[in-house]
Amino acid sequence: MVRVKLIGAGGYGGVGFVELACRHPQVELAALVDVQDVGRKLSDVWPHLAGFCDLPLVAPDSPQAADDADVVVCATPDGVGQAVAPQALAAGARCIDYSGDFRFADPGLYAEYARRIGRAPEHASPQVLEQSVYGLPELHRGAIRGAHVVGNPGCFAVSCILALAPAVRERCLLREGIACDCKTGISGAGKKPRPGFHYPESYEAARAYKLAGHQHVMEIEHELSLLAEDNVRVAFTPQVVPMARGILSTVYGRLAEGMSQARALEAYQSFYQDERFVRVLGPDAAAGTDQVRGSNFAIVQVACDERTGTFRAMSYIDNLVKGQAGNAMQNLNILFDLDEALGLDQPGAHP
Amino acid sequence: MVRVKLIGAGGYGGVGFVELACRHPQVELAALVDVQDVGRKLSDVWPHLAGFCDLPLVAPDSPQAADDADVVVCATPDGVGQAVAPQALAAGARCIDYSGDFRFADPGLYAEYARRIGRAPEHASPQVLEQSVYGLPELHRGAIRGAHVVGNPGCFAVSCILALAPAVRERCLLREGIACDCKTGISGAGKKPRPGFHYPESYEAARAYKLAGHQHVMEIEHELSLLAEDNVRVAFTPQVVPMARGILSTVYGRLAEGMSQARALEAYQSFYQDERFVRVLGPDAAAGTDQVRGSNFAIVQVACDERTGTFRAMSYIDNLVKGQAGNAMQNLNILFDLDEALGLDQPGAHP
Amino acid sequence: MVRVKLIGAGGYGGVGFVELACRHPQVELAALVDVQDVGRKLSDVWPHLAGFCDLPLVAPDSPQAADDADVVVCATPDGVGQAVAPQALAAGARCIDYSGDFRFADPGLYAEYARRIGRAPEHASPQVLEQSVYGLPELHRGAIRGAHVVGNPGCFAVSCILALAPAVRERCLLREGIACDCKTGISGAGKKPRPGFHYPESYEAARAYKLAGHQHVMEIEHELSLLAEDNVRVAFTPQVVPMARGILSTVYGRLAEGMSQARALEAYQSFYQDERFVRVLGPDAAAGTDQVRGSNFAIVQVACDERTGTFRAMSYIDNLVKGQAGNAMQNLNILFDLDEALGLDQPGAHP
Amino acid sequence: MVRVKLIGAGGYGGVGFVELACRHPQVELAALVDVQDVGRKLSDVWPHLAGFCDLPLVAPDSPQAADDADVVVCATPDGVGQAVAPQALAAGARCIDYSGDFRFADPGLYAEYARRIGRAPEHASPQVLEQSVYGLPELHRGAIRGAHVVGNPGCFAVSCILALAPAVRERCLLREGIACDCKTGISGAGKKPRPGFHYPESYEAARAYKLAGHQHVMEIEHELSLLAEDNVRVAFTPQVVPMARGILSTVYGRLAEGMSQARALEAYQSFYQDERFVRVLGPDAAAGTDQVRGSNFAIVQVACDERTGTFRAMSYIDNLVKGQAGNAMQNLNILFDLDEALGLDQPGAHP
Repeated sequence: MVRVKLIGAGGYGGVGFVELACRHPQVELAALVDVQDVGRKLSDVWPHLAGFCDLPLVAPDSPQAADDADVVVCATPDGVGQAVAPQALAAGARCIDYSGDFRFADPGLYAEYARRIGRAPEHASPQVLEQSVYGLPELHRGAIRGAHVVGNPGCFAVSCILALAPAVRERCLLREGIACDCKTGISGAGKKPRPGFHYPESYEAARAYKLAGHQHVMEIEHELSLLAEDNVRVAFTPQVVPMARGILSTVYGRLAEGMSQARALEAYQSFYQDERFVRVLGPDAAAGTDQVRGSNFAIVQVACDERTGTFRAMSYIDNLVKGQAGNAMQNLNILFDLDEALGLDQPGAHP
Repeated sequence: MVRVKLIGAGGYGGVGFVELACRHPQVELAALVDVQDVGRKLSDVWPHLAGFCDLPLVAPDSPQAADDADVVVCATPDGVGQAVAPQALAAGARCIDYSGDFRFADPGLYAEYARRIGRAPEHASPQVLEQSVYGLPELHRGAIRGAHVVGNPGCFAVSCILALAPAVRERCLLREGIACDCKTGISGAGKKPRPGFHYPESYEAARAYKLAGHQHVMEIEHELSLLAEDNVRVAFTPQVVPMARGILSTVYGRLAEGMSQARALEAYQSFYQDERFVRVLGPDAAAGTDQVRGSNFAIVQVACDERTGTFRAMSYIDNLVKGQAGNAMQNLNILFDLDEALGLDQPGAHP
Repeated sequence: MVRVKLIGAGGYGGVGFVELACRHPQVELAALVDVQDVGRKLSDVWPHLAGFCDLPLVAPDSPQAADDADVVVCATPDGVGQAVAPQALAAGARCIDYSGDFRFADPGLYAEYARRIGRAPEHASPQVLEQSVYGLPELHRGAIRGAHVVGNPGCFAVSCILALAPAVRERCLLREGIACDCKTGISGAGKKPRPGFHYPESYEAARAYKLAGHQHVMEIEHELSLLAEDNVRVAFTPQVVPMARGILSTVYGRLAEGMSQARALEAYQSFYQDERFVRVLGPDAAAGTDQVRGSNFAIVQVACDERTGTFRAMSYIDNLVKGQAGNAMQNLNILFDLDEALGLDQPGAHP
Repeated sequence: MVRVKLIGAGGYGGVGFVELACRHPQVELAALVDVQDVGRKLSDVWPHLAGFCDLPLVAPDSPQAADDADVVVCATPDGVGQAVAPQALAAGARCIDYSGDFRFADPGLYAEYARRIGRAPEHASPQVLEQSVYGLPELHRGAIRGAHVVGNPGCFAVSCILALAPAVRERCLLREGIACDCKTGISGAGKKPRPGFHYPESYEAARAYKLAGHQHVMEIEHELSLLAEDNVRVAFTPQVVPMARGILSTVYGRLAEGMSQARALEAYQSFYQDERFVRVLGPDAAAGTDQVRGSNFAIVQVACDERTGTFRAMSYIDNLVKGQAGNAMQNLNILFDLDEALGLDQPGAHP
């Protein structure tokens, strides 16, 4: 059994991980840590877990939180993981972090990222940072296997990178003029109530936001640049639509000379052919976020518009699964040499 | 009083027109025509109209349908308007048509459009067609004023053209590489139940569709080409998200040499400065389809990404108002030299 | 023109009143008062009002808030109206209050009400209280006409009283064993974000709440007791369902000896025959909250179950219109001897 | 392994069963039968099942449909099961039927039921009928264990019976004056698109329907009468609210002499103390359909109103799980002496 200490257990990212752990034959939750609802059972906070996970939430500094574990999963905002990881490593555990703390192994890049989100540019654990791995299995499976610290990607980043990676590596599109048009469900904003996500305010509202720059764009560009072996920049438009779960990202670029829809589709099929959790579709398939809801699957659809010379692809994921807890569990499976699909090999429920 | 014969009165486009007519001090509904629910009162089909519009729906060939009217509004699918318009004109009435029948005054263009949507290329009334005017007041107000037949634009077309017109005319962006990423509420598909719009199928589904080509793209390109005095092509992605009303279109292009966000915004403000129903916003404003819901207003937001050389703008409309019935009423007001805002000068209801 | 000072202008109850005022030919907004967003234009807080109501929100103690007005509308929680009303009256104005402050003209009843909601039992203005009138036009039109202070009913109370009043007065049901099963949309909770109304928490959640007692039950019982000339008690179950607007209340009781569905329906038709805003339906009609959405209409449907001796009726209202701002506007029209339907004589928008 | 032939595999009831079968270690799908989409893979019709259930849908008369199976599950409308069951039994299989075909072992009762739903009163297989068992494990576990044919209950019936059974058996309420006020999500109507469930028609609509009588009331009364050893009648109000999944039923009655909230709650706790899938709550708990979404659990909340002498309880279920496929799987587990929770021992996903 892999013993997990879960920090931030009471948020959507934590609860999502607990739900998957309940299905996982080799994961055991050792401790649930949070700063809210301390002392309450997780199943009192989230009653659907009653009988499945009745552990109490403990404070970060409580003795119970110090339980030994094989891996510490930080389902927490920026800043927590970088403080926690060194202790985890010192105690012999691995660490999977949901935030931006370990998405850039280069301290210079991290500093730039931190600056953009209004944090101090110095990472709290630069040495740990340098050994961390970007936790998108479809790109870094080998490195994740041997990693001690994994930076779980942002949900928008998962969706955009999966939609663009084959095209960028196989040069289906020009390096200039890439745009990512992303539509997310509201759960992406977390469990904290906010005016814009109050039901009556959001039920009939499609909105673009953070037009001056979203924190996920930097990891998208970084990963695509690695694939391109060149500097890739993307215009990124985050938008929220009235649903709870799901991201539909539509990506655009200029078709490379001689590139066609048929060849682009082939490149995608080839790139993802061994991937358990990526389904590649052509332009005629009917796809929707409902088809991946509650599951770790990503649908990537290639639908170029040759008439206008436009490269175009869509990706559909569940922001809370492949975009967060599911991808984290996939990383855990890789870290501990388990079948990558453990805890994840179920269809979602429809409708 | 302007007497209106409304054909297709029982669909969303018809009902929307009736709702506005109830608020309009100078419009009188003379006859409601439909092929469904014939003989029933409109308010029996749509009970919210009880006491406001209790006229019966009559068949197209009934004597009541032949009532004289000052204008015939065809809230009908392709094919109906071109059959009806000549009779309307012969009887001295004007005609406003919601379909693609009168969106291209050039029979050659119409033939191409008809071919794309699987109809016979010959227009039933080519002479009427040649005198028709594309009914987007923000572009063709003068021509509409003197027109006999107005082709009301498609809802996606309204949203994309409003988002791009100033940029295209003022050359804020390059002619190549324009993409329109459109998200519509489900009412855009009309009142007819279909599997994909059954509540349990659609409530958590964001989907792209018609990726091989949507019928609205041709009018978008035609209007933008007129503005550019050049051939403009756009990649167009229709998408549906789980809401009833609203379209958010995000348009992308390459910023022209020397163009900036500030200058682009200025161009938009100048272009729309006298427009009653267009609000221009900069990148920092919070906008959403909820802000135009139930009203004839369009919000156009300019938010270029200078870092990546990307021109970007969003438009927000209510697909059933500015995207359909409201725009038709605006056309009616122009046709009859009324205050353009009659019947339309109300805020929507929030939330 | 009737000049209105609106207190609590930035909440849903205030905004709803402003929307109606925009349609009302004889109402003028003199001052908008609130404790939040002071100094901002109302249309900056609620952009759908841009161009329709661009007045600033002023603090209660600002000089602008002291503008003379013909009527002060308090769209505010308990406690504000009772402090404000005496000043309004002293300045020669009338007062319409949305809260429970003026729903019980008897100080003893008020004390009991106050106790239940955890407030001090002494009313701040007992003399004003004693002259106040319960503002449900269908029951108290005559008294409202001459009133100085009107206590606008609670939204659940409107729905239950309209559903039960004819039955209670005409003794269609036994006095014992009445139950009100109420389902409200989420806007009934106001604009303040709360965990339970965060979109992802509420979009698939039907919930009963406040099972120990809801503050609206007392006014329901008080009004029904007046009609019955006897002591009437009702079991009351507030429930919230995932929609923004609307209340569906289903009321149950034991059919009185000799009472039938046919006679009960007749009693309702007779009771409401002159009411502009109440539509009475029989059991076979298809009704829904969507049919009254955005309008001041109430649908009351009588559908007794003779097989089990059960009296049953449903009422459908828009909680923000007939349940709040619309009913307040109706009261205003009565207070100032205007056509009762001014500002309210429009259908809602469908869908 | 228990081999299952699933008839009606492409509907919501069938798909729900398939989803559970994917999680069940001892269930194997032998054949999927349907009359629609014959020849397509189930995962082409419902893409979320891709890789999990790629069997084809076969016609009822195809040779593949004749595969031997240990149990035939009829996820079909009235009439199919009674035709199919005798053949299944003859082939040595058991049968679980979702419809009303086997909910009344008494042919006279069946005839009455059939009459109410407009079918011929003669059952096609009266001998099989007489041996069938009503498949609500909480009431008939013992009989189900030995049964050959199980009539899976209606979704409303599950919710009402669970809410009332302890009260009726323990005489917490009077036999007269029971009312069931039920609110269902839209998936209860199945996958077939209909005007009232078209997204734009239903997203803001709470509606009562079938007020003259719903087919589920008869089984509710039958089961309660068995528990009461007396004739029990209930008034039943089906209502639909804008959500996909879930039923909240609120039941009312008159508190029996000497009965209190405390004693009633105790009766419920005792009645359900050994039930894996029923959670009993008191009046102060916060419950909602979201807490049982995607799971086989039922929440039953006892919240009497002593002030008015009203017995009151709520039940919350997922109509597609405990109200249909989950309960069917629970029955299957009992039929084959498996752990009753196999395939069902997972929490739903939140949010």
